[in-house]
Amino acid sequence: MAQDIQVHIIARIRSDFPTKFGIPRQSGVVEALRAQIVFEPEYRNPDALRGIEGFSHLWLIWQFSQAVREKWSPTVRPPRLGGNRRVGVFATRSPFRPNAIGLSCVKLEGVELHTPEGSVLTVSGADLMDGTPILDIKPYVPYADCRPDAREGFTGGGWERLLEVDCPPELLPRLPDEKREALLGVLANDPRPSYQSDPERVYGLPFGGYEVKFTVSGHRLRVIEIES
Amino acid sequence: MAQDIQVHIIARIRSDFPTKFGIPRQSGVVEALRAQIVFEPEYRNPDALRGIEGFSHLWLIWQFSQAVREKWSPTVRPPRLGGNRRVGVFATRSPFRPNAIGLSCVKLEGVELHTPEGSVLTVSGADLMDGTPILDIKPYVPYADCRPDAREGFTGGGWERLLEVDCPPELLPRLPDEKREALLGVLANDPRPSYQSDPERVYGLPFGGYEVKFTVSGHRLRVIEIES
Repeated sequence: MAQDIQVHIIARIRSDFPTKFGIPRQSGVVEALRAQIVFEPEYRNPDALRGIEGFSHLWLIWQFSQAVREKWSPTVRPPRLGGNRRVGVFATRSPFRPNAIGLSCVKLEGVELHTPEGSVLTVSGADLMDGTPILDIKPYVPYADCRPDAREGFTGGGWERLLEVDCPPELLPRLPDEKREALLGVLANDPRPSYQSDPERVYGLPFGGYEVKFTVSGHRLRVIEIES
Repeated sequence: MAQDIQVHIIARIRSDFPTKFGIPRQSGVVEALRAQIVFEPEYRNPDALRGIEGFSHLWLIWQFSQAVREKWSPTVRPPRLGGNRRVGVFATRSPFRPNAIGLSCVKLEGVELHTPEGSVLTVSGADLMDGTPILDIKPYVPYADCRPDAREGFTGGGWERLLEVDCPPELLPRLPDEKREALLGVLANDPRPSYQSDPERVYGLPFGGYEVKFTVSGHRLRVIEIES
């Protein structure tokens, strides 16, 4: 029998997504999203971050805490394929894998060494649900990590299928300034499950303490309400 | 107290490095290095790899099994800084971190679905010691993972400090064909600990079942023996 390994939760993320609904499918897709990394009490040591400000991007290795399962399935149905084609789990970034470990590249926006919660990192572009446990933080090292020649399989060619977002001008100002662009980015990336296309359906997206209601018809997303 | 998480060893790597001596300091630095990923018995399911051949590069998330410690130190002394300047552990890729987890980008060279050991992946550019436990394998997705604009801190600017390698023409053919370029790459990347510079010292590098002896003087590395 294979051996198990014990790893520690070193930090948790504080993000605008109280549920997984609306979380971009990869990191970096919505750069305007801000999040904070708050260390667990025994890892609150400012020395551990010395020199981190010299790097523009970080890797987060984290636990898909909503996707931990006893059993694993060798295949999954990625949303990018419409949710109906099965692909090997190791050919995907699906949360449902033998170890529910996530990998995200985020931009480092700020380092605060002394807050009431110890050192806090502010990052952008994170695709993590609020409270997600973080297992490791590493600097992004371009010469080893950036492979512009890499060929991607079925994920093919990025996020060309953006939605056009209509948001009535009286609604957006209900959000704090710094969350507006992030919300519009999240919506443009089509937060619906891939296999849904009911133009009558009203979706409710909890985002940063607000509830955002919208409908989608064709390639147009219409925001109909933003409530706190 | 922070919570712990249990993760499973899903595979192990089979590489030419029986010890950590000579392992390149990041993945991809010596592309000619070949290694195999052999799954643990309960993860030997060819379906789990369906579609993986469409990707040219993979991420390996693995355990620095030689670096597991009870306690962690907030700072480390990276070899790139000569081994005498302390940097925060989260600003480095050091193995000595709260969770001894490694992250490597490797090139996928081949997929064999049915061997006596189940499915086996052949990869190149790996910086893993033989037998290293692997926790996850993910496809490299350029639109999320490749950040050509990323700024690196103290690691600055890649591997310009290559050594010139002199290998007597009668020695290199003692290695199998496919290991020659890899060995020369490993040697050019200067496997010595950073703070050593004794031109008399004879180093012995165990590599792929061979013992490679060499000396280094200034920027010249001289191979003096290759024994099986």
